[in-house]
Amino acid sequence: MDTLHPTSRTTVKRLPKRGVYDREEINRILDEGFICHVGFVVDGQPFVIPTGYGRDGHFLYIHGSAVSRMLRNLKEGVEVCVTVTLVDGLVLARSAFHHSFNYRSVVIFGKAALVEDETEKMAALRTFTNHIIPNRWEEVREPNEPEMKGTLVLALPISEASAKIRVGPPVDDDEDYALPVWAGVIPLSLEAGTPIDDPKLTPGIEPSLALRNYTRKPNQA
Amino acid sequence: MDTLHPTSRTTVKRLPKRGVYDREEINRILDEGFICHVGFVVDGQPFVIPTGYGRDGHFLYIHGSAVSRMLRNLKEGVEVCVTVTLVDGLVLARSAFHHSFNYRSVVIFGKAALVEDETEKMAALRTFTNHIIPNRWEEVREPNEPEMKGTLVLALPISEASAKIRVGPPVDDDEDYALPVWAGVIPLSLEAGTPIDDPKLTPGIEPSLALRNYTRKPNQA
Repeated sequence: MDTLHPTSRTTVKRLPKRGVYDREEINRILDEGFICHVGFVVDGQPFVIPTGYGRDGHFLYIHGSAVSRMLRNLKEGVEVCVTVTLVDGLVLARSAFHHSFNYRSVVIFGKAALVEDETEKMAALRTFTNHIIPNRWEEVREPNEPEMKGTLVLALPISEASAKIRVGPPVDDDEDYALPVWAGVIPLSLEAGTPIDDPKLTPGIEPSLALRNYTRKPNQA
Repeated sequence: MDTLHPTSRTTVKRLPKRGVYDREEINRILDEGFICHVGFVVDGQPFVIPTGYGRDGHFLYIHGSAVSRMLRNLKEGVEVCVTVTLVDGLVLARSAFHHSFNYRSVVIFGKAALVEDETEKMAALRTFTNHIIPNRWEEVREPNEPEMKGTLVLALPISEASAKIRVGPPVDDDEDYALPVWAGVIPLSLEAGTPIDDPKLTPGIEPSLALRNYTRKPNQA
């Protein structure tokens, strides 16, 4: 088990039993998700921007346009906090206080650096595309030179990171279990619908089986 | 139409045609969502924490525990950026470059202030609970005194805010439309499953129709 060393920033302080530092578990969450919230600071002010991402090994790749405000003056990397959150359910208790969510989240701290080498950048964009739609990169036109120039890619090492997970039924105070209130979990999940053809699609081209059965859920092997 | 005045922070700079400043549209997004990402700064370091929220009029209420690291020394309010993101679909173009997401997001900047008045705090907690599950507050045990003391609630005015929205099919370069690649949108939505009884549920208590038909989608009136 590859366990990340918790730092003062990644140690889960509130409800510490929900903290997870195992890299495999962290990667599973990162691989199921595909939208992160990137936090950065400009003149002391926090910004939080949603953006897509991809993971390759111990690196998370994000589109730099999200933090383009920051990149003007920073060549050596941008201090960021990247958070990925998967919501699995609403936890309904018998008291307002014990209502909660079932969720899995990952928080990564570190410096996101601009990927400048062209080969590495192309590989990062492939990772990014295929993280969201497996094998899509191999089907579509690759970026040309002006598109490559117009795209910023940032790499963030997944080293200072932690996950937080809540699962299971509500936990009520002993004396509340007798209350005549329904309690339990409403499961939530992100579901894909039937692919919608581009109105300009060339007649006769069908979405692949993989696109028609698109899901973010990992294979239950 | 109640239009918010864009500031330097809320003006959508990248793809400005996606920027929306209409309060009704912003509220619709905030009301469909229920998880926000709160960004704040400690010693120059950005933090991004996912947490639940509720909206009442021109205020967003969030659980203060999310930013409890910050609240120790700050009585006058915490400078935050709160972002709510709804993902509506994957946009598959014929070129890697033009892949995108359909989404609706809101970004709010401002000072989140601790709600200290007990009556206001109880009302905020009611808003918070009922935002996530309509009328739940009226069915469950209200917070008692120790629970109230153990709960921090922050209020953030929804005044410096903007939304960003992308809808519709991919937009490809003219010369790419002839490529033999499927293009279109894979719709995504957060779906609720069948409520799962708490294993300790008193036999005979059923979830209400509202819980069995739980959805975040607004009524199509």
